[in-house]
Amino acid sequence: MRALVCVEDVEREARARLDPGVRDFIGGGAGDELTLAANRAALDAVRLAPRVLTGLAGWSTAATLLGQPAAMPLAVAPMAYQKLVHPGGERAMARAARQHGVPYTVSTLSSTPLEEIATVGGDLWFQLYWLRDRGLVLELVRRAEDAGYRALMLTVDVPVMGRRRRDARNGFALPGGVTAANLGGGGTAAHRRRPGASAVADHTRQAFDPALGWPDLDWLREHTTLPLILKGVCDPRDAQRAASRGIEAIVVSNHGGRQLDGAPASAELLPPIADAVNGRCQILLDSGIRTGTDILRAAALGADGVLIGRPLLWGLALQGTQGAAHTLSLLQTELAEALALTGCPTPSAARTLHIHPHPGAPPSPPRTA
Amino acid sequence: MRALVCVEDVEREARARLDPGVRDFIGGGAGDELTLAANRAALDAVRLAPRVLTGLAGWSTAATLLGQPAAMPLAVAPMAYQKLVHPGGERAMARAARQHGVPYTVSTLSSTPLEEIATVGGDLWFQLYWLRDRGLVLELVRRAEDAGYRALMLTVDVPVMGRRRRDARNGFALPGGVTAANLGGGGTAAHRRRPGASAVADHTRQAFDPALGWPDLDWLREHTTLPLILKGVCDPRDAQRAASRGIEAIVVSNHGGRQLDGAPASAELLPPIADAVNGRCQILLDSGIRTGTDILRAAALGADGVLIGRPLLWGLALQGTQGAAHTLSLLQTELAEALALTGCPTPSAARTLHIHPHPGAPPSPPRTA
Amino acid sequence: MRALVCVEDVEREARARLDPGVRDFIGGGAGDELTLAANRAALDAVRLAPRVLTGLAGWSTAATLLGQPAAMPLAVAPMAYQKLVHPGGERAMARAARQHGVPYTVSTLSSTPLEEIATVGGDLWFQLYWLRDRGLVLELVRRAEDAGYRALMLTVDVPVMGRRRRDARNGFALPGGVTAANLGGGGTAAHRRRPGASAVADHTRQAFDPALGWPDLDWLREHTTLPLILKGVCDPRDAQRAASRGIEAIVVSNHGGRQLDGAPASAELLPPIADAVNGRCQILLDSGIRTGTDILRAAALGADGVLIGRPLLWGLALQGTQGAAHTLSLLQTELAEALALTGCPTPSAARTLHIHPHPGAPPSPPRTA
Amino acid sequence: MRALVCVEDVEREARARLDPGVRDFIGGGAGDELTLAANRAALDAVRLAPRVLTGLAGWSTAATLLGQPAAMPLAVAPMAYQKLVHPGGERAMARAARQHGVPYTVSTLSSTPLEEIATVGGDLWFQLYWLRDRGLVLELVRRAEDAGYRALMLTVDVPVMGRRRRDARNGFALPGGVTAANLGGGGTAAHRRRPGASAVADHTRQAFDPALGWPDLDWLREHTTLPLILKGVCDPRDAQRAASRGIEAIVVSNHGGRQLDGAPASAELLPPIADAVNGRCQILLDSGIRTGTDILRAAALGADGVLIGRPLLWGLALQGTQGAAHTLSLLQTELAEALALTGCPTPSAARTLHIHPHPGAPPSPPRTA
Ligand SMILES: Cc1cc2nc3c(=O)[nH]c(=O)nc-3n(C[C@H](O)[C@H](O)[C@H](O)COP(=O)(O)O)c2cc1C
Ligand SMILES: Cc1cc2nc3c(=O)[nH]c(=O)nc-3n(C[C@H](O)[C@H](O)[C@H](O)COP(=O)(O)O)c2cc1C
Ligand SMILES: Cc1cc2nc3c(=O)[nH]c(=O)nc-3n(C[C@H](O)[C@H](O)[C@H](O)COP(=O)(O)O)c2cc1C
Ligand SMILES: Cc1cc2nc3c(=O)[nH]c(=O)nc-3n(C[C@H](O)[C@H](O)[C@H](O)COP(=O)(O)O)c2cc1C
Repeated sequence: MRALVCVEDVEREARARLDPGVRDFIGGGAGDELTLAANRAALDAVRLAPRVLTGLAGWSTAATLLGQPAAMPLAVAPMAYQKLVHPGGERAMARAARQHGVPYTVSTLSSTPLEEIATVGGDLWFQLYWLRDRGLVLELVRRAEDAGYRALMLTVDVPVMGRRRRDARNGFALPGGVTAANLGGGGTAAHRRRPGASAVADHTRQAFDPALGWPDLDWLREHTTLPLILKGVCDPRDAQRAASRGIEAIVVSNHGGRQLDGAPASAELLPPIADAVNGRCQILLDSGIRTGTDILRAAALGADGVLIGRPLLWGLALQGTQGAAHTLSLLQTELAEALALTGCPTPSAARTLHIHPHPGAPPSPPRTA
Repeated sequence: MRALVCVEDVEREARARLDPGVRDFIGGGAGDELTLAANRAALDAVRLAPRVLTGLAGWSTAATLLGQPAAMPLAVAPMAYQKLVHPGGERAMARAARQHGVPYTVSTLSSTPLEEIATVGGDLWFQLYWLRDRGLVLELVRRAEDAGYRALMLTVDVPVMGRRRRDARNGFALPGGVTAANLGGGGTAAHRRRPGASAVADHTRQAFDPALGWPDLDWLREHTTLPLILKGVCDPRDAQRAASRGIEAIVVSNHGGRQLDGAPASAELLPPIADAVNGRCQILLDSGIRTGTDILRAAALGADGVLIGRPLLWGLALQGTQGAAHTLSLLQTELAEALALTGCPTPSAARTLHIHPHPGAPPSPPRTA
Repeated sequence: MRALVCVEDVEREARARLDPGVRDFIGGGAGDELTLAANRAALDAVRLAPRVLTGLAGWSTAATLLGQPAAMPLAVAPMAYQKLVHPGGERAMARAARQHGVPYTVSTLSSTPLEEIATVGGDLWFQLYWLRDRGLVLELVRRAEDAGYRALMLTVDVPVMGRRRRDARNGFALPGGVTAANLGGGGTAAHRRRPGASAVADHTRQAFDPALGWPDLDWLREHTTLPLILKGVCDPRDAQRAASRGIEAIVVSNHGGRQLDGAPASAELLPPIADAVNGRCQILLDSGIRTGTDILRAAALGADGVLIGRPLLWGLALQGTQGAAHTLSLLQTELAEALALTGCPTPSAARTLHIHPHPGAPPSPPRTA
Repeated sequence: MRALVCVEDVEREARARLDPGVRDFIGGGAGDELTLAANRAALDAVRLAPRVLTGLAGWSTAATLLGQPAAMPLAVAPMAYQKLVHPGGERAMARAARQHGVPYTVSTLSSTPLEEIATVGGDLWFQLYWLRDRGLVLELVRRAEDAGYRALMLTVDVPVMGRRRRDARNGFALPGGVTAANLGGGGTAAHRRRPGASAVADHTRQAFDPALGWPDLDWLREHTTLPLILKGVCDPRDAQRAASRGIEAIVVSNHGGRQLDGAPASAELLPPIADAVNGRCQILLDSGIRTGTDILRAAALGADGVLIGRPLLWGLALQGTQGAAHTLSLLQTELAEALALTGCPTPSAARTLHIHPHPGAPPSPPRTA
């Protein structure tokens, strides 16, 4: 294997080794994958003008996420079924996160029971999908609390699953050995291969309640004392409403281009949302973060941190814990260098940098027709 | 045949099977096909920011078109000579429209007599070209009325036919079995192959009266009580004039890039036209609509509905009624999902979404030099 | 030979048949050919919104150029050494122009004596390069007057010849049979092949006086009563000065991308120049005009007409007079159709059309740093 | 070898002959090489509208740099280890600069001792990296003063070396015969090949002090009377601070895209920096200058001159002094022609030209989130 000197290298190698169906399930986006591409284009378009002669002898990538210290302003994004790419699955990934001192978010659809993952230790968050069975939701919350999870991340952008054409063309379904371990762990619709359809989407349709609303959030708030994170906020009006309800953080995200194809790039959404939130809660960004500079870009645009999705699965696929840890190492080294080169003592200092829009890509305010 | 999970798949398969001359006649545009490409680029550039936590349990794609209920805000665009791609021709297409509860627009140049198509039933509209023979125009109106058509769509953007280079290079002419069935049905100039020229354009030149004007519209208004739709409006000044004359709807359209190459993308024209019309008549959009998200984009920009052209011909070419119906199914499913993912109970609710211009593609107001 | 249904077809065929050195001399531009490409991009970016229901029964491509009627708002651009591509040379080209009722501009560097070309008849203009030998300039003026030329076009954008890398790489030089027939007609530096250099540029350097200034223009004005056209104006300040000095017309031009690579596209320069001129003289546009729509675009942006360069040489190369005439036919047919499709009775009516900037290509006002 | 008619030709030929590791070390940039590409795109986007009829008989490329006359507004950029591409190394390059009457900047990391280079003569500047060993810094300053160097250029954009993935993938290290001759000249970390890492970066990490600050600049100012140039300024706030401290010049530079990938193109940074400096010191630009037009573009945007980097190494690699001199000849000839074609008597006159933003690339003011 060639030296893997950046996340792109990790992705390339992992793609070459993975089963095509799994590779597409991970790498793909919804529809024409326009939003998937836009996520990258928007980040590339954020160009930061370095400061010089700052006299700084050192830089720290450290950050505070939800009141807890983290080695960098980064958490592992919730991602379902991690055993698809490596037998170690969620435990292997959690180990990498713990080694690097960053939070790991366990998905409702993890292929390892949340309690088992908790034995790895580290800073763990639990991601909640809004299941039709409200009892099950409450049970998951209690289990996460009991297992020592430190935060709940409610994903709000999956009333239904986005149409991922690759999965439909592949007739993608879960292999027998990979199950929704927190939800009983047996075979589900996600295992019933249907030509021309995604079995994972079939399962989601059955299990998820699309009618999630603001009162449900209040209900959740009442039933737990864990910090709450809303994942999948794209409109400043929703961000404003969330911030005024005692939420600890929001994730500005288009689910990595996997939900509405035609949604704006998440990086573009950040500035107006940061304005609307106005410091009342933390803001995380995900969808397309691939380099340390991207983490600094997010900070410059107003984020307190980022979630990293696919790059960690590619790493996990290649070499388990070691592979995921390599991805985290690359990001941390790159972030440290970007701090040095821009003269920022910490990521949050990036907010004072001048941002130049890329030629041809002026960040524009949203417009209502 | 691989699973056809989106309209693009339908098009690809159909193109692979059609005779090159017919494929080019359908798929091609005028001139350098800049407007053909711009139609897509402008739609792709409309990015909609989803709303979350709406508490909506269901979404309805239903709409009202010209006062009639339709299963979605969509009508089949008028398209000439549908027997070119399938022996079932217009009747097969009309059946698909009826099955899906959407209006079907019969072209003046249909290859099946309008009365025969009417036997299929469903919500039928008749499209009128302005023929040199005014008596024939009136006769067509009466025949449509008698056969139970519910609306007349006057196409105003074909004073002459646009220069479609593919047809000229192919020396495209109609095969013997496909005729203008409403206009006598015999062989016409459209059947006389001329190298380096389009016989269909030759026929148009002979048959169509380019001098169509506002008084003609008044004349038509006086001669029928059917609702009138003007198809091919691109300038807010014309839209404003039409709206003030008791027209029921306009179609903002550049004829799918088949008339003036160098015309703006229809999606770009929509906002200023919606302003000019200001609710006085319905606004439909066509040219380049390919996904359910596109239908929502049109709604967000101010349209009450869309016309679908080529995607239905590709479907018809593949599998007759079933193929066209598959295209309609795909669009409806995608639209329903786009509603769910943006938190819109109905398509018209899209008007409250934030629209982000694509990096590098700011929708700009028209400018007069 | 396939049907040549547009200028692009003519170019493709001609390029395939011409000697590479000649093909590059004609088709090439200066430097990185950025301006060559920008000329097309800027025209493509001008999108015209059609008007409908105008009631127009006919359209006329006719125009008035320098007070004389022309069949369309178009003149043949001055182009040196036309015998390079066809033995009929300038006379063959002039015949095509006469047949189509448009002016033909004879270059100072024509490969046929201006008097011989004059025997063809038609509306002839003479293009003047500012030669170091002022006596020769005056002699050319007198000869043009005597031979019945109707206008003088002074080219002001060649103080030195632009660096055309293709010619330098090809070590391009004129073949023996092609000479500067108006300047003695013998062998010149333009015939002395130098590896790594353009012999035509060498000749220009020897023969042309770079120090052309406004007083020289006054001098010329005093020495002839022929209408004067300034070719190569790119800055509104120069246009304003020319207009206030009794010039009959200016040509907004970057010499087809052959002089300063890095100059703006000519179409972009037009609006501010039209403002500066404010009707005090006619404005012609050249550089990149390839379709009838382009001619209408030029009119919409404020031009009274255009010059056509390379497309006529490609036509001449293919079939002499007939080939050049075919190019003119294509342009006239396309222009007539563009008039019909935009609802303009004449080209000048295009000034009332709405112009939409292409996504990503907003025409912007000039800026001084 | 084909005729080398432009810098691009020189680069192409040199790349074809160089060892891949060296070729990548020279040609590569940091990260995704976005800034490397942006440098060119931003220059291409600066389009200058020529002036005509200026009456100028001649043009001079001459300029004044740091109070000294130069044959053109250009200096050779400091570049480490020039023996990597040619045994003549720095001396061969310095000879080319002297022949062409432009300053040559010797790098701290030159592979020839600065005194030896000084024997070549010409206008020499010395570039200073901020070494951890402050005594060594002072010693270098004294040696440069003693050897007759005319200016000190302090590079401020390398607190750490940018991550150049090519070098890491190649495991690039210096060959034995090429050493940091000013720093003892023995083997260093730069010679210890490490797979997956750049040995040159390793060496930099050991040798350079990242904590360079404004007080250090004051210290340097006190310890030398040589004119000071700050290289690597990207933010107008830093430029303003430098200008107010008695610096003679700044270089607006992103180190040729070799440091922070994601930094803005240097040409874009120039206008706001020129505003901030407001004539208080000279401004040089580097990163991507490849043609004479680029030099004029820089002048139009507010630069007093440019530095040329890689193009001279490509020339040196091909033919030593003669090759580097050929690059300088090309640039001077092109600049002279660009002056002629824009009607500018001198480069600085370019400031009065109208600058057109390239379609799609509006120069935008910086924005702080
Ligand atoms: C294979 C895969 C599975 C995912 N599963 C979940 C999930 O279970 N819950 C969730 O909220 N988001 C899920 N996501 C979305 C991620 O949390 C995250 O938003 C997205 O991957 C970020 O974009 P990136 O992959 O470009 O970094 C998943 C993403 C991928 C790629
Ligand atoms: C093969 C074909 C035939 C057409 N015939 C007609 C017609 O007879 N009358 C009409 O008004 N429009 C006609 N159109 C234009 C369509 O009604 C519609 O405006 C266009 O196809 C919409 O663009 P789309 O194909 O990208 O959806 C035709 C279009 C095609 C592709
Ligand atoms: C082969 C060739 C020769 C030319 N010779 C002359 C000339 O002698 N005098 C002149 O003023 N312009 C000359 N031009 C420039 C044209 O007049 C005109 O400005 C340019 O070709 C217009 O661009 P187009 O070729 O894209 O239509 C020449 C152009 C070409 C291609
Ligand atoms: C091989 C190489 C070595 C360089 N070494 C140095 C150096 O020692 N000191 C320095 O200040 N800049 C160094 N630079 C940066 C150049 O001085 C200059 O900023 C850059 O090359 C300009 O961009 P250009 O190569 O696109 O002209 C180096 C650049 C290259 C390509």
